[in-house]
Amino acid sequence: MRLVYYIGIDLGGSSVKAGIVTEQGTVVLKDKKPTRSKEGSDTIIRDIATLVEELLVASELDGQEVGGIGVGIPGAASKEGFVYFATNIFWTDIPLGETLGKMTGKPVFVANDATMAAVAEYRLGVTQQAANSVFLTLGTGLGGGIIINHQVYSGHHGIGTEVGHMTVGHNWDYDCTCGNNGCWETFASGTAMKNHAKKLLSQKTPSVLKEKTKDDPDHISIWHLFEGAKEGDEVCLQVVQRMTRYLAVGIANLINLFDPEIIALGGGISAASDFFLDELKLQVSERIYVKKMNLTRIEVSQLGNDAGIIGAAMYARDEERRNNL
Amino acid sequence: MRLVYYIGIDLGGSSVKAGIVTEQGTVVLKDKKPTRSKEGSDTIIRDIATLVEELLVASELDGQEVGGIGVGIPGAASKEGFVYFATNIFWTDIPLGETLGKMTGKPVFVANDATMAAVAEYRLGVTQQAANSVFLTLGTGLGGGIIINHQVYSGHHGIGTEVGHMTVGHNWDYDCTCGNNGCWETFASGTAMKNHAKKLLSQKTPSVLKEKTKDDPDHISIWHLFEGAKEGDEVCLQVVQRMTRYLAVGIANLINLFDPEIIALGGGISAASDFFLDELKLQVSERIYVKKMNLTRIEVSQLGNDAGIIGAAMYARDEERRNNL
Repeated sequence: MRLVYYIGIDLGGSSVKAGIVTEQGTVVLKDKKPTRSKEGSDTIIRDIATLVEELLVASELDGQEVGGIGVGIPGAASKEGFVYFATNIFWTDIPLGETLGKMTGKPVFVANDATMAAVAEYRLGVTQQAANSVFLTLGTGLGGGIIINHQVYSGHHGIGTEVGHMTVGHNWDYDCTCGNNGCWETFASGTAMKNHAKKLLSQKTPSVLKEKTKDDPDHISIWHLFEGAKEGDEVCLQVVQRMTRYLAVGIANLINLFDPEIIALGGGISAASDFFLDELKLQVSERIYVKKMNLTRIEVSQLGNDAGIIGAAMYARDEERRNNL
Repeated sequence: MRLVYYIGIDLGGSSVKAGIVTEQGTVVLKDKKPTRSKEGSDTIIRDIATLVEELLVASELDGQEVGGIGVGIPGAASKEGFVYFATNIFWTDIPLGETLGKMTGKPVFVANDATMAAVAEYRLGVTQQAANSVFLTLGTGLGGGIIINHQVYSGHHGIGTEVGHMTVGHNWDYDCTCGNNGCWETFASGTAMKNHAKKLLSQKTPSVLKEKTKDDPDHISIWHLFEGAKEGDEVCLQVVQRMTRYLAVGIANLINLFDPEIIALGGGISAASDFFLDELKLQVSERIYVKKMNLTRIEVSQLGNDAGIIGAAMYARDEERRNNL
């Protein structure tokens, strides 16, 4: 039997990562380049094509053995790979699938990066083979990927799963960049935590953060906040507690709507979950509508840095197979 | 070819409606009884079985021609028809499917009443053949039914689609009966509108409502509120405007999450939608995350009183066919 490989691309704000992945989800070779956002989409797409070419040469595979290319983008795209927007790399209406397809001669499949991470977890990680799951990336922002009935669900027009922009309350501190007030990611994300800490510091509350950041609030990282909380610092504790409370509000909403088998937590904040996971589970159990059926498991993602590459490759595999049915 | 019929049951707080429905969704005969909630679930289930029997006799069908029975309940149930709860008829953990199945000798399929209404709209109404849609019942409370990829989606454990208990803000006036504050239905439902009107009246705001209700705030109906708003009454206008604003918040949330093809509005409030639909669509378009892709249609349901019966029968048809695959 001939082996088939898929190429997974993780297009992020700072780097483009690419990998050759087996049908079973093992990365055999990977590489990356900086994302040249300021030079426009043509440059970035050419860089992706070059990465693909270089990986094929280095791996001594000829193109015949590659079944397709999956690209995870920080934005939303149609099933055909037309990128509606990818804000932090300044893309609007870019025909990524078509252009990259012509350059490489391979079928290209594009989806949101959180969706790709959800696929990786579904194939190899914590939501493995769960029929219905929601994956959350708790990073700078708050993204989501949804699997329903064993398939990626991105909405009818490819613009769903924007979990971070679900209104969950009123945020008295700041509006969301999307123009609304009260988006979930303004309460439960790295940015939300940093903003909350800055506000508390501006109220002259004493905190170990001053020392950790050499008195520059712009240098606060989520690691400072979790470290400080572990040390018992009042400001850091308040920040983590509020983030946890709102994480519970949004997760309870998702359970009331989707009632998934598992909700998986990924992204930078999830790496510190030992500090808040028990409290989060408790608060979710108190908020869900059907309290006696507290069945949705809340788990921390298992895959590391390669999740974006693996998920994109597995997504390409699944879509290519579906197209060939 | 032998004709097959399905029986649809709409179990509500005040009445049990039943109908014999063709495979195409036409009601050929229907009847109803009062819901004897206080006499317990056994009595109600026996009443349902009696209704079924009486309809079969009156229609001169023998049982052979009936493919199955669908029951819409005001609560949540497993796929096997085990009712976890149905608060306003005082049910907890009732094996409705099993009991009614034994009494009638027919396969019984149970789901939430809003889900059944969603199925009716999908088969014969405004969401007809849409792959992905959300149906909202804007009545005393706020219920929902979700169709994903042409199939009913009720969650992994059958307790999803509780849209009314999505937290969307802080409600300074009252907590939700579920124990949380800020549930969508405390802002956008008949109960929410009445409570808001009562509050404004208690602040001595002059209003035509006093005349319409003979100065008894407990007699306020949503019709009084919409009538008053059409007459330009300040209290009624405020009530309708706030309901519309929060309806837009929640619908934008659903679009950001599900990105459906259509969101259909049913229930008593939707009957007055000529008064707020344009404003609602405008506000939704301003709130959704991908503003340039304002593609989800917001439509008023087309089916009348029989939607519950028809939906339950069509649900039974679809589930029975799936089981026989």
